Amino acid sequence: MHRTIDWVDGAVVVIDQTALPAEFRLLELRTVGELVDAVRRLAVRGAPALGAAGALGVALSAHQGGDVRKDAELLATARPTAVNLAWGVERALAKLDQGKDAVLAEALALLAEDEELNKTASRHAAEIVLAECPRRPLRLLSHCNAGRLATVGWGSALGVVWHLHERGLVEEVLVDETRPLLQGARLTAWELAQANVPYRVQPDSAAAAAMARGMVDCVLVGADRIAANGDVANKIGTYGLAIAAKHHGVPFVVVAPSSTVDNRVADGAGVTIEERDAGELTEHTPEGARAFNPAFDVTPFALITAVVTEEGIFRGAARSPGHRRSP
Amino acid sequence: MHRTIDWVDGAVVVIDQTALPAEFRLLELRTVGELVDAVRRLAVRGAPALGAAGALGVALSAHQGGDVRKDAELLATARPTAVNLAWGVERALAKLDQGKDAVLAEALALLAEDEELNKTASRHAAEIVLAECPRRPLRLLSHCNAGRLATVGWGSALGVVWHLHERGLVEEVLVDETRPLLQGARLTAWELAQANVPYRVQPDSAAAAAMARGMVDCVLVGADRIAANGDVANKIGTYGLAIAAKHHGVPFVVVAPSSTVDNRVADGAGVTIEERDAGELTEHTPEGARAFNPAFDVTPFALITAVVTEEGIFRGAARSPGHRRSP
Repeated sequence: MHRTIDWVDGAVVVIDQTALPAEFRLLELRTVGELVDAVRRLAVRGAPALGAAGALGVALSAHQGGDVRKDAELLATARPTAVNLAWGVERALAKLDQGKDAVLAEALALLAEDEELNKTASRHAAEIVLAECPRRPLRLLSHCNAGRLATVGWGSALGVVWHLHERGLVEEVLVDETRPLLQGARLTAWELAQANVPYRVQPDSAAAAAMARGMVDCVLVGADRIAANGDVANKIGTYGLAIAAKHHGVPFVVVAPSSTVDNRVADGAGVTIEERDAGELTEHTPEGARAFNPAFDVTPFALITAVVTEEGIFRGAARSPGHRRSP
Repeated sequence: MHRTIDWVDGAVVVIDQTALPAEFRLLELRTVGELVDAVRRLAVRGAPALGAAGALGVALSAHQGGDVRKDAELLATARPTAVNLAWGVERALAKLDQGKDAVLAEALALLAEDEELNKTASRHAAEIVLAECPRRPLRLLSHCNAGRLATVGWGSALGVVWHLHERGLVEEVLVDETRPLLQGARLTAWELAQANVPYRVQPDSAAAAAMARGMVDCVLVGADRIAANGDVANKIGTYGLAIAAKHHGVPFVVVAPSSTVDNRVADGAGVTIEERDAGELTEHTPEGARAFNPAFDVTPFALITAVVTEEGIFRGAARSPGHRRSP
């Protein structure tokens, strides 16, 4: 299976996520400018994949004899919310005084680790889901895309589905389509279809009704940045889902590699939220319409059942009322 | 201003809501079959407007010497959730033994009343908003379209905005785009633009984040059916909005003519929810994708600040914590 992002013959090669699911297309990015552009227009997206993009971008600059520190700055600030981007840049940049080959080796090491970290994190999370949700098989709710397309491989929140599906425990994944850019309808649905996991796409606004009807055993989401106190910045809509999940006593589990944790940010209020162009929302509006289009929102740790990374399980305050245990 | 639905020279004439905002187009419907088709594909929609469609459809059948009782049945069941459709049909049908002119006169009386009823209901609701929300000017949140396009004229929830805007009290309306059919982005935005009321369109999933940022003083929605206990069936997403509003202490006000109240239904569980075609959601999904696409959801009265009709104000349990008063 093709990696979401990789280094091939001196270029950064990514699966073009703007073309899926209609077309599987690879983009060969030969300059930092091309890579930054691909990041900005979401041809490559997802916090862990952005970490890889940051590291590979620094390697690309070093190999072309570019102004590596200037390019690193460009890469690290290409999008403001995912901390992994800066983390990947910093990690590769730390090897710069050892030469361009050391920089590339570090970037490739980061890529190689990504799949294993996500497999481990999602395996931990699968255990949480099994412990919190008594029903078999499971009906899981997914928002945005936290699958292999959001990482180098395997996936974070969707990685939990792969683990559970291998054990024959998944009845259905309800896929929030995730307006405005439809990462759920386009990318998560594509990954689930490829893996033969039963799924249905739903309007984002149907999630609460699905919970009220008893159709959801657990909500699984990824993260773009996790603050030191456990607050989670993730795709717009995550916060409303968490409020609805708490209202219905549905477990709400966040899965991400530990590179998503930003201990320099005390809580969610400190996370910069990217505001995207109104054009993503105004295709069918009257001319001149303005938009409120934040790409992310912040979910307080108090609304989360658990934040899970490869390093372990961080229990939030939100527990299913039916399954409370002593601490 | 053109009525949303009217009787012109022996035909039912409606504003084609599938063409807005790109094009303002009238449809001349000369048979009950054409009218039922227009209702099913949402060329005319909105509970109060459907009431008018039901009554005019019976008049159309009577004037053409059709099988009026059979046509009435077709009309009443064209869509299952809005009770107004059957109510309009029954009201016109009750005059059938007095002849076709009496049927038409009754349908036209219903149309004439609609605008006045909605003006009165939304005037009551405006007073509730002013009492519940101390901030001036007001930032209001709208879901779907409950404007003049959802009624014969004026509008229900959006009618509140017209009253408040006349008094210079509206800073902004945040417009949920309302997937899948974008009644907010297309119709509510069009009405607000026509009336020069400042607005921004947002993804439905951004509403909770807007509340968390303190950008919303009050949520205003219409209703497709109100059960005897005050539970409200309305456009999918209304329920999640109500949960989020309660979580943030934001008042949540439902505005509808009393014809929307169905006392034969004890509570929300008794309302039939229309499930619409997957095709509304699968334009960008992988081939063969299935969908969960309920057109409506049910909001319990406990999550509602007030249900307001022309007959009065029915106080729900949800009150802004900052503005609790003695009962």
